[in-house]
Amino acid sequence: MADTRIVSSHDVLPEPTLSRLPWYLAYVSLLKVRRVAYVSSTAIARGIHLDASMVAKDLSFVNVRGKTRIGYEVVELERELRSFLGFDRQHNAVIAGVGSLGAALIADSGLQRYGLDIVAGFDVERSIIGTIISGVPVFDITQAAEVRADMQAEIGVIAVPVEQAQAVADTLIDAGVSALWNFTPCRLLAPENIVIQNTSIYAHLAVMYNRINANNPDLTR
Amino acid sequence: MADTRIVSSHDVLPEPTLSRLPWYLAYVSLLKVRRVAYVSSTAIARGIHLDASMVAKDLSFVNVRGKTRIGYEVVELERELRSFLGFDRQHNAVIAGVGSLGAALIADSGLQRYGLDIVAGFDVERSIIGTIISGVPVFDITQAAEVRADMQAEIGVIAVPVEQAQAVADTLIDAGVSALWNFTPCRLLAPENIVIQNTSIYAHLAVMYNRINANNPDLTR
Repeated sequence: MADTRIVSSHDVLPEPTLSRLPWYLAYVSLLKVRRVAYVSSTAIARGIHLDASMVAKDLSFVNVRGKTRIGYEVVELERELRSFLGFDRQHNAVIAGVGSLGAALIADSGLQRYGLDIVAGFDVERSIIGTIISGVPVFDITQAAEVRADMQAEIGVIAVPVEQAQAVADTLIDAGVSALWNFTPCRLLAPENIVIQNTSIYAHLAVMYNRINANNPDLTR
Repeated sequence: MADTRIVSSHDVLPEPTLSRLPWYLAYVSLLKVRRVAYVSSTAIARGIHLDASMVAKDLSFVNVRGKTRIGYEVVELERELRSFLGFDRQHNAVIAGVGSLGAALIADSGLQRYGLDIVAGFDVERSIIGTIISGVPVFDITQAAEVRADMQAEIGVIAVPVEQAQAVADTLIDAGVSALWNFTPCRLLAPENIVIQNTSIYAHLAVMYNRINANNPDLTR
């Protein structure tokens, strides 16, 4: 069946394509602000320095058709990209760990613009439980199941210290989330039907430090 | 010359290896807390569900030697991994854009534990310039060059709205940073000697939404 299905946003696209689509969205949003009416895949490719045929192929996954010689309607392409990427739908999330990173994620209004609504927080720290952080109530992690169900949250964000990451992941999965957004450097184990998205900003730091050293071998050590 | 050089942390390692090293560090730190004295690469691999030969190969880049049948000394391996990853050295950074995400990054004390010290912020918003956010002074972006030099910051963090990202990147490069940590979904252009690390948490959101839809095709649309 999978073979004959028409490509839709339900299919798992190649991750590189998916990761590039937000670049196109960012560029097209810019054009929209500048009141540009049409844009070709070639112009997008030139604007963000990518290969034109790759951009055209990536955009072929999105439900929008360009006109020969004119290209895509900017307003339509922007709307379809936002929709395709799921940024125009609200996804409720709970967050475990409302320490410095957790509180920061709650406070980041950018996430809401990209469709992520953090509706509740969990912690083990007695002094924080019962408080409200940037409008988000904080509960005891033992209440995870009822709060998640009440709030209809499908995503669990993990921002706890690394040594608690797996236990908290297990708790959130038992509580019924279908996806985990993991900000810890812990490799989480989960059943196959649970989506795991790792965003290890500290691993990115390590990669950046290493490249800086490679560029400036005399600066360190 | 590159061919005969002994591998050191100055070399650009394969990025997948580099990205996995923080996982090993997280696991080894856990063992240290639990007062485990020795660990083998096989045990690490088992602990975080990776292939044992890959873990052994990855660890061969790090300046630490295991003992036959006993493995690595946990305390030494943790220290060497932290050092190798640059987490034990202070890297000064300035941040452009102290809105919700920027302020969140400044407030995240986790970054400091991983060697990143945000020493100054820049913004264009008159009401924010001259204030102090979580101990970090905020300057007018036009003062970028002198502030960066004063503070000896080598890294510029970009947390501005996407449409200002390239202009701000250019300003920070002119101001003398050698690396940009880009949190916007904009593809930045920079001279080759400038390190660019992209951390597009919103692109990760898109990937996660797509996978959730693929797992639950009946839930949406």
